[in-house]
Amino acid sequence: MYNFEFQNPVKIIFGKGEISKTGKNIPVGAKILLTYGGGSIFKNGVYDQVKASVEGFEVIEFGGIEPNPHYETLMKAVEIVKKENITFLLSVGGGSVLDGTKFIAAAARYAKGDPWRILSMRAPVLDAVPIGAVLTLPATGSEMNASSVITRAEYQEKLAFMSPLVMPFFSILDPEVIFSLPEKQVSNGIVDSFVHVIEQYLTFPVNSPIQDRFAEGILKTLTEEGPKVLANRLDYDSAANLMWSSTMALNGLIGSGVPQDWATHMIGHELTAFHGIDHARTLAIVLPGIMHIMREQKQAKIIQLGERVWGITDGSANERINRTIKMTAGFFESVGIPTRLSAYQVGAETIDRICDRFTKRGYKIGEKANIGPGEIRLILEDRL
Amino acid sequence: MYNFEFQNPVKIIFGKGEISKTGKNIPVGAKILLTYGGGSIFKNGVYDQVKASVEGFEVIEFGGIEPNPHYETLMKAVEIVKKENITFLLSVGGGSVLDGTKFIAAAARYAKGDPWRILSMRAPVLDAVPIGAVLTLPATGSEMNASSVITRAEYQEKLAFMSPLVMPFFSILDPEVIFSLPEKQVSNGIVDSFVHVIEQYLTFPVNSPIQDRFAEGILKTLTEEGPKVLANRLDYDSAANLMWSSTMALNGLIGSGVPQDWATHMIGHELTAFHGIDHARTLAIVLPGIMHIMREQKQAKIIQLGERVWGITDGSANERINRTIKMTAGFFESVGIPTRLSAYQVGAETIDRICDRFTKRGYKIGEKANIGPGEIRLILEDRL
Repeated sequence: MYNFEFQNPVKIIFGKGEISKTGKNIPVGAKILLTYGGGSIFKNGVYDQVKASVEGFEVIEFGGIEPNPHYETLMKAVEIVKKENITFLLSVGGGSVLDGTKFIAAAARYAKGDPWRILSMRAPVLDAVPIGAVLTLPATGSEMNASSVITRAEYQEKLAFMSPLVMPFFSILDPEVIFSLPEKQVSNGIVDSFVHVIEQYLTFPVNSPIQDRFAEGILKTLTEEGPKVLANRLDYDSAANLMWSSTMALNGLIGSGVPQDWATHMIGHELTAFHGIDHARTLAIVLPGIMHIMREQKQAKIIQLGERVWGITDGSANERINRTIKMTAGFFESVGIPTRLSAYQVGAETIDRICDRFTKRGYKIGEKANIGPGEIRLILEDRL
Repeated sequence: MYNFEFQNPVKIIFGKGEISKTGKNIPVGAKILLTYGGGSIFKNGVYDQVKASVEGFEVIEFGGIEPNPHYETLMKAVEIVKKENITFLLSVGGGSVLDGTKFIAAAARYAKGDPWRILSMRAPVLDAVPIGAVLTLPATGSEMNASSVITRAEYQEKLAFMSPLVMPFFSILDPEVIFSLPEKQVSNGIVDSFVHVIEQYLTFPVNSPIQDRFAEGILKTLTEEGPKVLANRLDYDSAANLMWSSTMALNGLIGSGVPQDWATHMIGHELTAFHGIDHARTLAIVLPGIMHIMREQKQAKIIQLGERVWGITDGSANERINRTIKMTAGFFESVGIPTRLSAYQVGAETIDRICDRFTKRGYKIGEKANIGPGEIRLILEDRL
């Protein structure tokens, strides 16, 4: 195990009916900007529960934060925060709304010029408006971490930043929000959470049995509970297990003291930037290619994944790896997510554009920083 | 899964050499009371590392905090904190030193009379001196939780309190401290951590696969890595895995959203109070008795434990339970901890005294609050 530091102060409030505790977790006298997305919260009852809970607070609303939240949209909220002297941001939505709210929190207090630098230059975040979150969709893990991913539409750029200052003070996770989710969002959430675990697990062994078993426990739970939620959206227990899996997948715990990859995400982000493909779907496309092309470097962990999650216990190393890749891609397909570029009408010309971008950036990715434009080409060609 | 709240803001600093970061995690200008135990920190180099790191701070030392820390000892430290205007407590030791330091922290700021009430009446803790910890022994999990157990020698009482205000601001976990531990302390730590997990796991199913698999992951790791540490105290990787298991065993995570038992601890505390038996050893005595006497209530989880941790996959329910109890007690014995009262020269008269105490207290214990003096008698008689 590597040396590490781990600290995650987010207060998790989990379970049915808990949205009613929103207000009492916000500082008395706070002036709130309530951020949300496309408006599903008005249909599923979440908005009404939140509003009832924050009665007595001064609340301004800012809706329309899109999936892969746009810098351009968020900067409008930043203006409101400044003009209205907002002191608390309440994110009511999924990971995109929360990621966007994290950027609003940091950008509104950014004192050194254009806040775009927080993303483009990883300029340090020295202050942020406090955030609370009511989660409406299990997927990104943003509710219990310091990360945010933002898209700048005009540049077709999708970039991330991290700061402990944008971790929510509290996140309310009521699994009942899953009851009204469309199938596509549930599928995306399952795959997104699955690949979050994989990015922190499928690297090389460093003798870290706690981290490995926790990771495998989340993966196994996602493979068992995810399909149950798809089959019956009103199954509260399975919804709860999916939601908790999704949070545990990316709160820093399983990634502490172990190597991490994130190449699937970085390549996937480009597919979203160029084609607007849902984030989770890009991961489902890229991951099998990474497993195939990087199979030597990842051999021990792919075999361990096959054995402990998919029950593959015999065959040569190569056979086991092939079957593990097949089971993993098959799982994504089984929850309704195509894993080939062709299914999204994406062809070879996009591969050229993505490789160009990585060539310009000049750095390599993956747990050994050895995936460059050449490897990315092979990975994506494997997924045509 | 039950509804739950989870928040654990402790900053974990994990790995070899990390004790050198002690000073830079303490507020500038703090006046420190450095608390420690019997003096092993002077022999294993930890004291020197800590002192080098806190150079420049004003530091007063308070040693002699005993295992099962005594109220009487701790109150002497409380006087020093008040008289010297101490603003930060630095616990350098194992779980007893840290539990004691937590009580010092709360008692020194207790404004409503005798601080004994914090323990005897669970009087609310409204303020506490900030704490940092350098851990020298993996066992209690105190480094990442809000709990403290204190003994009042004159009453032969061992009582607990909890408050988020006494959670350490940081805990430094350098697995190298294990290199010089005597065998007995390693054995105790393995069993203590194991039973912490069991108290949060071996109850009844509530459909909580994440919590179950995390718990099983810790148990399995303890059974694999514990013996390696006993066999070779200089095996850094195994020491690190044991240390991380021990912290994860009792930081609130695996117990969130599930029923908890704690009867083994509550009965075990009486054995320590009357006979001074090491805490972990009392747990090793009591747990097999709880598993046997409460086998109906715990049936599903005992069978799951047997299957997933001990590999017991066939036989009738009763056979599987018997084998699981045998494997569990056998594991404790295999790491050098006797599991029978007779091995500690404790006989039937102690059982009477313990049952008397529970009769006087008038409440029942266990995950269904159905273990009273009658059941406790059966449990302990099973362990003679």
